[in-house]
Amino acid sequence: MDGKEFRLKGKEVVDYIVDYLENIRDRRVFPDKKPGFIKDQIPDSAPIEGEKWCDIFKDMESVIMPGVTHWQSPHMHAYFPALNSYPSMLGEMLTNAINCLGFTWASSPACTELEMVVMNWLGKMIGLPEEFLHRKGGSGGGVIQTTASECTLISLLAGRYVAIKMYTDLFPEATKHEINGKLVAYCSDQAHSSVEKAALIGLVTLKYIETDDNLSMRGQKLLEAVKEDRDNGLIPFWVCATLGTTGSCSFDNLEEITEICYNEFLWCHVDAAYAGSAFICPEFRSWLKGIHKADSIAFNPSKWLMVHFDCTAMWVRNSAALHGAFNVNPLYLTHEYSGLAIDYMHWQIPLSKRFRSLKLWFVIRNYGITGLQEHIRKGVYLAEKFESLIRRDHRFEISAKRYLGLVVFRLVGDNVITETLFKKLNSRGRIHCVPASLKGKYVIRFTVTSPRTTLDDIVTDWKEIVRVTDELQHERDQLYSRVKVPLGETREKNENFGSSLLLSNSPMSPKIVNGSFAAIYDQGDVLADFYRTIKLRKDAQDSPAMRRRIRGILMSGKQFSLDSRLDLFHGIEPVSVIRTGNDKSHNLPVLEDSNENEDKSSSPSENNQDFHSPSEDILDTPQRHTRSKSMDHEINSTTIKNCIEVKPICSKCGHSVNGHQSRNEN
Amino acid sequence: MDGKEFRLKGKEVVDYIVDYLENIRDRRVFPDKKPGFIKDQIPDSAPIEGEKWCDIFKDMESVIMPGVTHWQSPHMHAYFPALNSYPSMLGEMLTNAINCLGFTWASSPACTELEMVVMNWLGKMIGLPEEFLHRKGGSGGGVIQTTASECTLISLLAGRYVAIKMYTDLFPEATKHEINGKLVAYCSDQAHSSVEKAALIGLVTLKYIETDDNLSMRGQKLLEAVKEDRDNGLIPFWVCATLGTTGSCSFDNLEEITEICYNEFLWCHVDAAYAGSAFICPEFRSWLKGIHKADSIAFNPSKWLMVHFDCTAMWVRNSAALHGAFNVNPLYLTHEYSGLAIDYMHWQIPLSKRFRSLKLWFVIRNYGITGLQEHIRKGVYLAEKFESLIRRDHRFEISAKRYLGLVVFRLVGDNVITETLFKKLNSRGRIHCVPASLKGKYVIRFTVTSPRTTLDDIVTDWKEIVRVTDELQHERDQLYSRVKVPLGETREKNENFGSSLLLSNSPMSPKIVNGSFAAIYDQGDVLADFYRTIKLRKDAQDSPAMRRRIRGILMSGKQFSLDSRLDLFHGIEPVSVIRTGNDKSHNLPVLEDSNENEDKSSSPSENNQDFHSPSEDILDTPQRHTRSKSMDHEINSTTIKNCIEVKPICSKCGHSVNGHQSRNEN
Repeated sequence: MDGKEFRLKGKEVVDYIVDYLENIRDRRVFPDKKPGFIKDQIPDSAPIEGEKWCDIFKDMESVIMPGVTHWQSPHMHAYFPALNSYPSMLGEMLTNAINCLGFTWASSPACTELEMVVMNWLGKMIGLPEEFLHRKGGSGGGVIQTTASECTLISLLAGRYVAIKMYTDLFPEATKHEINGKLVAYCSDQAHSSVEKAALIGLVTLKYIETDDNLSMRGQKLLEAVKEDRDNGLIPFWVCATLGTTGSCSFDNLEEITEICYNEFLWCHVDAAYAGSAFICPEFRSWLKGIHKADSIAFNPSKWLMVHFDCTAMWVRNSAALHGAFNVNPLYLTHEYSGLAIDYMHWQIPLSKRFRSLKLWFVIRNYGITGLQEHIRKGVYLAEKFESLIRRDHRFEISAKRYLGLVVFRLVGDNVITETLFKKLNSRGRIHCVPASLKGKYVIRFTVTSPRTTLDDIVTDWKEIVRVTDELQHERDQLYSRVKVPLGETREKNENFGSSLLLSNSPMSPKIVNGSFAAIYDQGDVLADFYRTIKLRKDAQDSPAMRRRIRGILMSGKQFSLDSRLDLFHGIEPVSVIRTGNDKSHNLPVLEDSNENEDKSSSPSENNQDFHSPSEDILDTPQRHTRSKSMDHEINSTTIKNCIEVKPICSKCGHSVNGHQSRNEN
Repeated sequence: MDGKEFRLKGKEVVDYIVDYLENIRDRRVFPDKKPGFIKDQIPDSAPIEGEKWCDIFKDMESVIMPGVTHWQSPHMHAYFPALNSYPSMLGEMLTNAINCLGFTWASSPACTELEMVVMNWLGKMIGLPEEFLHRKGGSGGGVIQTTASECTLISLLAGRYVAIKMYTDLFPEATKHEINGKLVAYCSDQAHSSVEKAALIGLVTLKYIETDDNLSMRGQKLLEAVKEDRDNGLIPFWVCATLGTTGSCSFDNLEEITEICYNEFLWCHVDAAYAGSAFICPEFRSWLKGIHKADSIAFNPSKWLMVHFDCTAMWVRNSAALHGAFNVNPLYLTHEYSGLAIDYMHWQIPLSKRFRSLKLWFVIRNYGITGLQEHIRKGVYLAEKFESLIRRDHRFEISAKRYLGLVVFRLVGDNVITETLFKKLNSRGRIHCVPASLKGKYVIRFTVTSPRTTLDDIVTDWKEIVRVTDELQHERDQLYSRVKVPLGETREKNENFGSSLLLSNSPMSPKIVNGSFAAIYDQGDVLADFYRTIKLRKDAQDSPAMRRRIRGILMSGKQFSLDSRLDLFHGIEPVSVIRTGNDKSHNLPVLEDSNENEDKSSSPSENNQDFHSPSEDILDTPQRHTRSKSMDHEINSTTIKNCIEVKPICSKCGHSVNGHQSRNEN
């Protein structure tokens, strides 16, 4: 394709983009495709000769679009927003035409300079203290990273560098690996799974702090953990405070946490991935109180600010710690241009970076601060409206306080009812949500995302929810009387969460490899097929560590990464397989070995009855047979009971937790 | 901006892009701006009210473009290519309109599925063995990552995971931190600095293997190092083989290396960042011999294949090792869709990913395999032509064998002559190159990049080089007779490399923080200003470790990261400052302390004479005064001498190297 052809085809694509976005309501928000659908439509190998653009372009509608989850749709309520906008796309078109790599100032001066200026703009827009901005003689500043996960990792590595340096100076005889082995990081039990990933890469211990009733990490609990670890000879070094958790958009108490970090010499990273965009509105900025004592903060303009992915804004108070983390004994030049000419390669994990500030600059300028505030406020307003619709229907409950644009709700009663509703909704493809597990409750997350969403859209979505709920209730009423399950018991039923939670396509789900697709097939036949073919890899099966882990997950109050619930799936195979004497069943792992059984006697036998309640069978959810307690019972009746009754256990390693209250006492 | 306006403005931008690319020869390839030039032109804070698009867009030409290094220009010869193309840009326009996040299969099935198919296409195009492709029941496959640096890190983390797991099983009493403390990674002394960054993040020891005369890492030297480390109780675990080094595009001997890795249970990662694109041509594929025993390979279609940044192709033989590195005890589901529905979040560091396969798919289809081969072959042909022009002029020499599109050349004689040429060329802005240091020789790297480059462009560039060389020679002949410096002596003159090398804007330069801009100011007045303001941060100054490191760098034959040469700058301040008794001079670090002096007696006094040769002063390079040996002599005459004569020392830690031959014996 030459420039002449691009003039024509580029303009056709511009029209196609507008048509796509303006008519996006006409498309199923969530595709109904099976794995392999693209492989089946296109050749196995690249073409020898070039193809004409028209032949390529027509595959957009025939091959690609039918398999797209439409994140820009007003009926997209899953995850968090990932919005684009016209000025953002224009910025990226120009970025891609220039296609410079901004690893150093000199590799394309405009790339570095604009990023510095615009990150100062944005920092001021959310009310960051001056120390976080680029300024003459200062060591702080902002940088655009790829994802919030990466910022979490970067800050952890920077904190690790500072800690190892400090302790090496204090104890010159200690090796850096000895020090590293004692480092402890902290986050709330609601934190994003990327914190766990960062700790894994940094090879440091991560401890989860139990949140309060508002799902907020508080200073007191953090301080207790830090002190206990210090008493045990460990080295607390880094804390991740979350502003706007993935599960429910809850907020850690930043003021309390940064105070402790400041006093205890801990690096405090603030993960405000979603909520950070809202801080451009002064009324939402109170959650930032205490930020002046934090060390780094990140949020995603690529989420709610309509700067399309990727664009994560990160600020640090002291960039020298980043340089130290990524650079062997860095040498510093200070000169008359200090603070003006920086080399961003030392601020990030990859060497190269795109000219991402251009799209951010365009969006901020085109909307202006007031335009962006209006967009945020409209999203919050629509979420409030949705919340009020939910509250009007006594069959539903709001499971956690609504913050910003995220409403979490469920049907009153057993988790299975909400799960069934969730799967029906997604399979119809008119709205798309993902579930979450909030301290044992199965909830549906409903995030208002698109700037195109209107009140009419919200009402339409609500009507869809009501329609499906009515249908479910109708089916149910015809067959069974409803079995009420007190909420207090739902925690004991955690292992009853179905595959939609186990295998859900959630950003918080790091545990299951290659399982997300299963979450979208809830039709009986597909699932039956699916379950018939499931095998767990032998090497991932039975081990004391795995058993401890499963037990820990069962008992902890942690905001599970959604897929982590599949741990419970471990060791279970469908009836059909077992009954037909398939020899794979002999390889089934045992969930608990006899040495680890504790407290057998306290397992009330009536639990088995509850788990085998009719409600499990009525709502056309055959997959539940494969992992209901009744099924487990057929395999090994003592297994699950023992898990349920075990006393408080660390959710990460499975060790008994001493000196912590069990959740029942909350 | 609404859809209606985007239809108009988007099309204007399409025209602007074509105008920009087709007329790019009219622009200075390298900007002549000073730090702060953007800050001076735009407001300090974001606008309250939105601005009109026309006001925003006009800043492209007035504010942005004057500060851009034009990577798409035919006269861009710096670094490696970073090319775009029209089908690539169309792909990205659509990607950004959809703006889905492809962390799991279900988060947007088309995103994952197309990536799998296209990565199979590309893997076959470069002749990868089947084990690296996605296939039913297989554990290998391809993934698009952000950068090659990230792939290096990912593979190192995967290798670390495998090694720690294996040794924990073998020695259950050992902690993972103890094992980690013994892990050793290897790469050639020509490898990219990202390997060092990865080792720093993974907290493992990295050892550089000395390359042979062709700058190639060979099996024998690697095996010796591995055996020696095993004898010393260390755990070799990972090797990075480079196909196409940054300095000179040299190739490690993959067949020898993978054989050793295979026998010794080491993870072998192949970094073919630039050269990988060439493997689509069968005639360049011999360098891949041995790949069937490697564990992972990465190259950048974003470099030479005209898929604009970011797009790095990575393949692994066993994805389970990635999952293990990023996932706490991952659980595997195998099912009838295994190998079709994967969740890429477990293959990478960030959670989210863009729909990057679309642009890759478009480029491969639009050009076809033959079209892409033609583009690669044309680049190689033009580099050959450039090489032949160089060879015709006796004043120049080709410093290392030319491979693919990269020619490294220099002026015969002292490094300072080539450096002066280099800086003059860049400051004129008609062509843009970066330098490299190849075992003590200062060389200019000339990479053929753009698909728009013609033979005429190459001849024009050559004429520019000749013109500047003539001018330099003319100036010089008028003032001084030329001082010939035998090449054999250049190594001893390493510390004479000037600031363009010290502060160069090279991708291989991880050492100096915020120094790249200095490389582009070679005019006397600017540099004089600059040097007058230089201070080194106190905390980066004098320490035994720093002294050892400087000594090590001085003596090693390693392919320096360019900026690392600034280590030599350490401890030196301009005459003016010292002579005026500025009290900062009292804080000057001492390069060597008395305890570390070795072999003083062997420092031949005539070296000082050489370093004070007239050639240092003639070529309008005032900056050299600040770091020539004669200057150092005024500060501490024994300092440099001692450095130069010290015997072989590890280039990374500065420890004496036993059992290795000194470079003189090569």
